[in-house]
Amino acid sequence: MAKNQVSSSVIKRLPRYYRFLEELKNQNITRISSQELAELMGFTASQIRQDLNCFGGFGQQGYGYNVSQLYMEIAKILGIDKLQKTILIGAGNLGKAVASHIEFEKKGCQLIGIFDNNPELCGQIIAGLNVLDISQLEKFCHKHNPAVAVLCIPKSVGKDMSERLINLGIYAFWNFSHYDIKTSNHKNIIVENVHLADSLMILSYKINNKEQS
Amino acid sequence: MAKNQVSSSVIKRLPRYYRFLEELKNQNITRISSQELAELMGFTASQIRQDLNCFGGFGQQGYGYNVSQLYMEIAKILGIDKLQKTILIGAGNLGKAVASHIEFEKKGCQLIGIFDNNPELCGQIIAGLNVLDISQLEKFCHKHNPAVAVLCIPKSVGKDMSERLINLGIYAFWNFSHYDIKTSNHKNIIVENVHLADSLMILSYKINNKEQS
Repeated sequence: MAKNQVSSSVIKRLPRYYRFLEELKNQNITRISSQELAELMGFTASQIRQDLNCFGGFGQQGYGYNVSQLYMEIAKILGIDKLQKTILIGAGNLGKAVASHIEFEKKGCQLIGIFDNNPELCGQIIAGLNVLDISQLEKFCHKHNPAVAVLCIPKSVGKDMSERLINLGIYAFWNFSHYDIKTSNHKNIIVENVHLADSLMILSYKINNKEQS
Repeated sequence: MAKNQVSSSVIKRLPRYYRFLEELKNQNITRISSQELAELMGFTASQIRQDLNCFGGFGQQGYGYNVSQLYMEIAKILGIDKLQKTILIGAGNLGKAVASHIEFEKKGCQLIGIFDNNPELCGQIIAGLNVLDISQLEKFCHKHNPAVAVLCIPKSVGKDMSERLINLGIYAFWNFSHYDIKTSNHKNIIVENVHLADSLMILSYKINNKEQS
C-alpha cells in the first residue's frame, strides 16, 4: 500500500466515506457502485474511484464495492481498528459534551480517564468514568500510560497543561483549547486542532453569498 | 470583487486567516509580510499571496499587509461584519457547550433564543438566555424571524425538527445533529454540518502513520 503518497485531502475525506459506509451497513446494503456512492455523498464517481485507488482499489468492475469490506478497509487505513489509551482534560460543558457524544472506541481511542481541577466536578460520572482531580494526573499516567489527550481546557492553561502531558508521555492531542500547541518544539507530537467557530464563519460566508452560488 | 470564482478550498482557509490576524491584532502588530504570515500559519508565502489575490490583493510591495485592514476585509468577505438572528435547539451538554464557548456575535450570528423539550432544562440561563420550552418555538419565530438554527439535537429528531424550522422561515443550519439535512428538497437551504468525530479519526490516522510521515 502506497500510504506515503496519499495526499492530505484524500485522507481528510476518509472519515466521510467511513460514515456513509456505516450508514449503508446499518441499512443492510451489501454492495454499491461508485456511481451510487457518489450520488449519496455528493462526490463524482471518478473522484471516488481515484480516492480509493490510492489505497489499492477495492472495487470490482461490474460489481461495485462490497460495503462491509470497504468499511473495514477504511477503518484499517484510518487505524481506528486499534485503540489508543486516551484521557480527557477539562470536564466542563465542552468536556462533558465531547466525552458523552463521541463514540471514542469506534474512532480508535479508548477513553480511560477524565480530569478536572474543579472540586465540584470531581467525582461526577461522565461517560461511565469518575472525574478525577487533576492532582492525580501524574500517578494515573505512570500507571496506565495513555497516549492521547483530549484538551477541553481554556486557552490560558493550554501551554502549561500540554507541556505537563508531554512530559507524562502523551504524544497525541485532540485539541479544543484554542491554544496553539507548538509542534516545532516537540518533533514527535501529533496535534489535531478543533476550531468549531471556523465552521460557523463558513456558514456566514454561505449565507452572505447565497445569491451568487 | 470576483467572489464567484473563488474556490471552496480558499474559502475554507479564510477563518484560519481571520484567527491568525486577530491574534496579531491582539499583540498590537500592525503590519506583516506574506513571508512572516506564512511562517506563522504553516502556509507558503506564495499560497498566501494567491489566496488573497482572489479577493483583490490587499498587500503592498515592500510593505506587506496592514493587519487590521486585512482583518476587516476578511470579516467582510466572510460576511461576519453583519449579524444573522440565530436560535439554538437542544440545551443538553453539547448545546450548552456550543452556546457558551462560541462567540456568536464575532462570527456573524446573534444568538437570540435557546430551546429544549426537557422541563428540567427550560428556565436555565445559558449564555445570558433563558432556555425556552420547544412549544414556544412557533410563537418566538413569528415574532423575531430568526434566519439561522444551531441543531444540537439527537439524530432521531433531526428530520422533524429541521422541517419544522424550515416551515418557520429558518434557511441556514449549523448542524451538529448527525442527521443529514437533504438540501435537494429545499433549494435555498444552507447547511454547515459539524462532524466532530471526523477529526478524531484523522488524529487516529496520524498516530498510526506517524512513522511514515
